Amino acid sequence: MNTGPARGMRDFLPEDVRRRQYVIGVIAEVYQRYGFEPLETPAVENIETLLGKYGDEGDKLIFKILKRGDGAETGQADLALRYDLTVPLARVVAEYRAKLPKFFKRYQVQPVWRADRPQKGRFREFYQCDVDAMGSRSMLVEAELLSAAADVFTTLGFTDFQIVVNHRKLLNAVLHHAGVPAALHGTALVIIDKADKIGVDGVRRELGEQGLAPAVADALLDQLNAAPPPDLQAWMAEQSSRLDESGRAGVKELGDIFALCRHTSAGRHLTLDRSLARGLSYYTGPIFEIRVADLAGSLGGGGRYDDLIGMFLGESVPACGISLGLERILVVMAERGMFPPGLETRAADVMVTIWNLDTLPDALTLAAELRSSGVKVEVYPEADKIGKQFKYASSRGVPFVTVVGDEEAAQGVVTLKNLGTGAQQRVPRSEAGRVVKAALLPPVS
Amino acid sequence: MNTGPARGMRDFLPEDVRRRQYVIGVIAEVYQRYGFEPLETPAVENIETLLGKYGDEGDKLIFKILKRGDGAETGQADLALRYDLTVPLARVVAEYRAKLPKFFKRYQVQPVWRADRPQKGRFREFYQCDVDAMGSRSMLVEAELLSAAADVFTTLGFTDFQIVVNHRKLLNAVLHHAGVPAALHGTALVIIDKADKIGVDGVRRELGEQGLAPAVADALLDQLNAAPPPDLQAWMAEQSSRLDESGRAGVKELGDIFALCRHTSAGRHLTLDRSLARGLSYYTGPIFEIRVADLAGSLGGGGRYDDLIGMFLGESVPACGISLGLERILVVMAERGMFPPGLETRAADVMVTIWNLDTLPDALTLAAELRSSGVKVEVYPEADKIGKQFKYASSRGVPFVTVVGDEEAAQGVVTLKNLGTGAQQRVPRSEAGRVVKAALLPPVS
Repeated sequence: MNTGPARGMRDFLPEDVRRRQYVIGVIAEVYQRYGFEPLETPAVENIETLLGKYGDEGDKLIFKILKRGDGAETGQADLALRYDLTVPLARVVAEYRAKLPKFFKRYQVQPVWRADRPQKGRFREFYQCDVDAMGSRSMLVEAELLSAAADVFTTLGFTDFQIVVNHRKLLNAVLHHAGVPAALHGTALVIIDKADKIGVDGVRRELGEQGLAPAVADALLDQLNAAPPPDLQAWMAEQSSRLDESGRAGVKELGDIFALCRHTSAGRHLTLDRSLARGLSYYTGPIFEIRVADLAGSLGGGGRYDDLIGMFLGESVPACGISLGLERILVVMAERGMFPPGLETRAADVMVTIWNLDTLPDALTLAAELRSSGVKVEVYPEADKIGKQFKYASSRGVPFVTVVGDEEAAQGVVTLKNLGTGAQQRVPRSEAGRVVKAALLPPVS
Repeated sequence: MNTGPARGMRDFLPEDVRRRQYVIGVIAEVYQRYGFEPLETPAVENIETLLGKYGDEGDKLIFKILKRGDGAETGQADLALRYDLTVPLARVVAEYRAKLPKFFKRYQVQPVWRADRPQKGRFREFYQCDVDAMGSRSMLVEAELLSAAADVFTTLGFTDFQIVVNHRKLLNAVLHHAGVPAALHGTALVIIDKADKIGVDGVRRELGEQGLAPAVADALLDQLNAAPPPDLQAWMAEQSSRLDESGRAGVKELGDIFALCRHTSAGRHLTLDRSLARGLSYYTGPIFEIRVADLAGSLGGGGRYDDLIGMFLGESVPACGISLGLERILVVMAERGMFPPGLETRAADVMVTIWNLDTLPDALTLAAELRSSGVKVEVYPEADKIGKQFKYASSRGVPFVTVVGDEEAAQGVVTLKNLGTGAQQRVPRSEAGRVVKAALLPPVS
């Protein structure tokens, strides 16, 4: 009998869950501070809600659920597992339009399922962490989203992250200027987006395969790979004079984002990257990615996509969002040892030992007293030898144990043993919780 | 195009999620205080992990996932959606045995899926909230589980709940004493468990259909429906003298639970209910339910089941657990209006209004200042007429708005308007966050 999780799926043991909940907690707390509200949708959607929304390749990766009754004979599927959080959001926006505020701002942290070939770091069940603001075309929306993202990464302990931005309209203008026909803009952007993986030569080759002359590809790459302009204002002014109306609008919006973010926590992390393309075709305005130096790829990304959320509504709904890469954030934080001390290992702050079977009731009383001081308490469930109980607490990473033997009971005290140092002290029972709590506080820095 | 959730599934809009997260947060926080650790398993399991574990009726309710590739032709399913949290726990206990502590105590709050006929209050995706302690046969485990449950319900604001307990071994002894043949004990317990729904006459009739003489059924019902004994100690002593060894062991364990719980928060809620049967066949020891007067059925229940968790391990693993009825708890709390004020409606504590387009950067600065005081801040994204902005904040349940017009800007102050009372005051910008926060604090009781 195979007792592992299904292929490409993961069990999260307590230390994993604590790490995940810590990061999700920071994300939720920060976005709530910005007025974003939580949304949850079912794991299972009607199959027609999902099919046709992710291209042919995407459709193949959707997990389909057999129709009850005759499904096993006909092979018919009527339901499917959620593939992302964007299509369900579009469905929710259409279904509850009258109940939702005009400027609906939601975050959603839920698993999605894709029948991808499992490989290192890629799973068939993984969490997406999406934050989207709908209803306004103001660049204030972008500034708030990026500022909140900066707060998230700062709170998690990142100091070295970059928020790189670009604009689809500027990219289109660059493509146009380099001589890429409008019909090839989308394809060219997808190729450029792969530069990380296939290199500059790969980009040049694939652009060539699309019929772009080497000179066109070179002109395009020169433009995109130019270093960030030293004087952004001057560069923008210069661009504006060269570009068509749409390109100018893009430059204006980028300028607004930089100007607004100067007043937020995002400001000092913000950089223009003229080669940033983002693979998805649905972006219509500013696009952004959050990067750290030691990770190929990004820790999150997003942009403005004004024509997608209205797909079920039949009208355009302005929207801008960011998707934080929860799984990648966890990987980088684990590699760098960024989790708070004790978070991963500690099931309890103190374990109450059992002196003998007659003292079980007193152990429960002591546990209740300790808990009322706000510490996490495990009670050893059996009257094993005291050394065995100490050993168990040590193996569990519990920093303190209590002992109430005959003497302690007679005197109304408790012996507190620090399993890390071996030090032990007798304290009045009423003080024990406070003492443990004080000892566990992080040193004042 | 149908934009609703799939049949029997639910979307949780922000007010729903906040209510759910509040209750789940209390449950997690309390059980953590008792040393329980979080576990999460994938939504999708290999189909053979689930099939055959829930009886023929259960198997039919499992959502099956089509095999990728030729599944659509063959109708073959290789994966399935989690049906409960107990079988995945048993799988995890077998798979990670060496990594898990001897006394593994876990809580798990995740959705499960059942292809039940949807009806009022019954859904195809719903959350289970399971807490289980493994590895010990000590009644201290029961006492801790029930004490934590009492803390959960007390923290949520319930004062009137009862924790009713009984024991499978006592039930078996009662059945035996009433003349029910051992082979019919399981069937009889299931019938007795339905007394809520089918009434005493229904129980009598169904027992009759199993071939039990009316006298046997009456003797049984008399025993089970007897009022709680006025003197529990005396009753237990009396029972012990009448019962066989197994029945005496059951009474002894019940006595231990009452004695231990007298030292915990569960004590004053605990009652013996000799008719409590619990429908599931796998319980082997104490069983319990948490009840409130105005709800048929229970808010949670569980018991000891020493032969189930080892199903994949091929050995007996002592285990005792409680499953809290999250969906029912939410229904009762909503009916009774038990959620903290503001929880359901308030996306933000204060909304920063936009005086004109030139003040957008200052609005972001003010928002950052307010957030650093720990209040939740929404920034209105556009420079609409101020009255329209106020109206929007009101409609969103946001209690305060800020206004920084030309005068305020010149003086370095901000006008804070309480949308509930209409009162407004000018305060120094550095004070605004503190003032909002103080105004939102619940009155000291």
